[in-house]
Amino acid sequence: MIDNIPLDPAELSDAWDLLSPEERLAGFRMLPPEKAEEFFFDLSADDQAELILSLAPGERRIWMRLLEPDDAADVVQAADEEDRATLLGLLDEATRREVTALLAYEEDEAGGLMSSRFARLRPDITVDEAISYLRRQALGKIEVETLYYIYVLDNAQRLLGILSLRELFGAPGNRLVRDVMNTDFVAVPEDMDQEAVARLFAEYDVVALPVINDEGRMVGIVTVDDIVDVVQEETTEDIQKYGGMEALEEPYLRIGFIDLMRKRAPWLSILFIGEMFTTFAMSRFEGKIEEAAFLASFVPLIISSGGNSGSQASTLVVRALTLDEIKLRDWWRVVRREFFAGALLGSILGALGILRVAVWQLISPIDYNGALAAGLGTAGMSATVFVSLLGVVLFGTIAGSTLPLLLRKLNFDPASASAPFVATLVDVMGVLIYFAAATALIL
Amino acid sequence: MIDNIPLDPAELSDAWDLLSPEERLAGFRMLPPEKAEEFFFDLSADDQAELILSLAPGERRIWMRLLEPDDAADVVQAADEEDRATLLGLLDEATRREVTALLAYEEDEAGGLMSSRFARLRPDITVDEAISYLRRQALGKIEVETLYYIYVLDNAQRLLGILSLRELFGAPGNRLVRDVMNTDFVAVPEDMDQEAVARLFAEYDVVALPVINDEGRMVGIVTVDDIVDVVQEETTEDIQKYGGMEALEEPYLRIGFIDLMRKRAPWLSILFIGEMFTTFAMSRFEGKIEEAAFLASFVPLIISSGGNSGSQASTLVVRALTLDEIKLRDWWRVVRREFFAGALLGSILGALGILRVAVWQLISPIDYNGALAAGLGTAGMSATVFVSLLGVVLFGTIAGSTLPLLLRKLNFDPASASAPFVATLVDVMGVLIYFAAATALIL
Repeated sequence: MIDNIPLDPAELSDAWDLLSPEERLAGFRMLPPEKAEEFFFDLSADDQAELILSLAPGERRIWMRLLEPDDAADVVQAADEEDRATLLGLLDEATRREVTALLAYEEDEAGGLMSSRFARLRPDITVDEAISYLRRQALGKIEVETLYYIYVLDNAQRLLGILSLRELFGAPGNRLVRDVMNTDFVAVPEDMDQEAVARLFAEYDVVALPVINDEGRMVGIVTVDDIVDVVQEETTEDIQKYGGMEALEEPYLRIGFIDLMRKRAPWLSILFIGEMFTTFAMSRFEGKIEEAAFLASFVPLIISSGGNSGSQASTLVVRALTLDEIKLRDWWRVVRREFFAGALLGSILGALGILRVAVWQLISPIDYNGALAAGLGTAGMSATVFVSLLGVVLFGTIAGSTLPLLLRKLNFDPASASAPFVATLVDVMGVLIYFAAATALIL
Repeated sequence: MIDNIPLDPAELSDAWDLLSPEERLAGFRMLPPEKAEEFFFDLSADDQAELILSLAPGERRIWMRLLEPDDAADVVQAADEEDRATLLGLLDEATRREVTALLAYEEDEAGGLMSSRFARLRPDITVDEAISYLRRQALGKIEVETLYYIYVLDNAQRLLGILSLRELFGAPGNRLVRDVMNTDFVAVPEDMDQEAVARLFAEYDVVALPVINDEGRMVGIVTVDDIVDVVQEETTEDIQKYGGMEALEEPYLRIGFIDLMRKRAPWLSILFIGEMFTTFAMSRFEGKIEEAAFLASFVPLIISSGGNSGSQASTLVVRALTLDEIKLRDWWRVVRREFFAGALLGSILGALGILRVAVWQLISPIDYNGALAAGLGTAGMSATVFVSLLGVVLFGTIAGSTLPLLLRKLNFDPASASAPFVATLVDVMGVLIYFAAATALIL
């Protein structure tokens, strides 16, 4: 079973997604021992759970015990309901208690992200004593998530102050910790949502934040590396919503086909139903189309221009809202700006549209006058195209910029004002604007 | 001029974008002294440059000298050409030399991100000596960007090894630094692109990376907080490209109107020109439309469904490529998956389309047979709508998923396969598929 030809970890990583659980285990066993540990740490919690459970019972304990409590909690969470007790049973008593406590938190709140292994000091020792104490702890292999910040707690585990190790180093050795610590610090409640925690990290530019429970005791720290993952996850969700579907929650190649369809089909169907209004709108003008079939040829060109300009505007506004570059109270500045942008962009496309009508007339003349009762020919068609493009692009930019603001105002996610959603809205309006212009100007 | 009513820094931040340079200066002077420094550090490099230059010459020096060399370099870079010498002149000689060296780097390469203030040790001292040395440095206020990692250099400034402070703390006091340092480390060349640096941070999960020049000397460190900004910047660029425009490079409300138009108008015009092919395609079928005007009513519905499904597929694939969840060699798995997705989603929309035709026929009957020479009536129209939707959605998902892969293969940015770009491509094809189906099935 155990083959002694060592396997390159990079090769195994590359093939991982294509392998069955048995093949994964076989590959893992073929790794050189010194590489296996690193490989194991790089796996996702799902894969770690699967791998541990596929090992012989005797071997499981070693791997499970390699994990830090917060990572062990993720592995337990990733396993199926019936395997969780097995995995918890592999841990030593103290860690099991820690992991069980962590499991009580929601995955997406501060408590679910935190580690309970942080460096702590009492306030009434000197700086020199504090440094020796931390060194003794480190020598004794007492694991902490980071030594970057040290937390000063009283006997009731209440957080009194924070010291960076740099500050501790820079303080005279005979001063008390109490006198050199910073008492003006930011802490997060254990049930704070992870997005709010991420915003605090960005705002205060720190590498770790302390977590406080509702009795005021410090229970752990959240470190910046967990937050980087959170930000990436949230960005992916935003982008997927923005592409006109529900957020996937799993990597594209990992998610099951049925789940993938569940995320995509409903939105696509809703957009389809919304788009049906274009058929109603157009069928109202069927008489005009019968009279002048060339009118229909311009419909996709006109409506898609509205969709594209709306997509630009909503992309800009959604992203700027996410980054807090725009606040709700800026709405008037945004709308005013997009009004002028729409007017200018619409005029540019309108000019291109006139060019299209004129050039086409030279190549393959349309007998506008023959087709129309009292038509104005090329001039009328040019005017219709220009006016419609101006109107549609203006509507697109204004809809694209106000919708995300409106959604934020109503406490919905602005990213739901997706490019396809805005385009659908604009399409219906585009048909109406175009045929109204045509009726007024040529028919 | 100097008013003594203290101003709340948060209020000034909120109003900042709306204030003139004079008002900003006046507001800044009204901050309580202990808050002014923090406020200053939180400003962008652009704002810091503007503020320093608006101060009286005698005051400028204090603020400029508060900045770390890498931040000072950003401020100099943010100023206009003619003000740069003034700003550099405010620094002390040593810092000026450091800043000038940093200015030689491109903004988006490792050298442009790095700080030259890192903690360093010689290899042949003991752990105890190293800790005392670092403490003496810290006590003497020798500033370093981070004490998280300590770099062991030889006399020629070549990097021999890296020690985390935690490891230094955990090592027996009488061992030599040389014997406890890690010699298996990752370093980045000074001209490495910032995106590549960001990927190394993600891959190795570190808080700082050393930067090495082409003579092999260590010249600085890049820290994770700079990288968080880089990742956010790059994501914003991706999202903006994905919305069908060029990346803005500045926040939405900051960028000048002319620049904003320069980023948006070219893409919108290119998409418009691409979309013109739909008019050519539709004008080929003008005869059919004259015969059966109701056909035109379904055009926006059919083509937008292709655009929406293409937008879903390309969003998923672009994001997965960015996160390295999909590699180029996975192309066949992606395309196969999207083929089945397109077939299923197309069938769902097709079924909804048939429903639309049938229900509409009950409400407001179209005399298909009267309109057509040898038509099949509602059945023919239903079949046309179903077949076109299936074809268009299938084409949309396959185009949306392969285009980003193709762009990556050709070394272009996959995000250029934007939702509007894919939609334009699919629109032209949609018109052709729809009229081909109509011709075959009912006309």
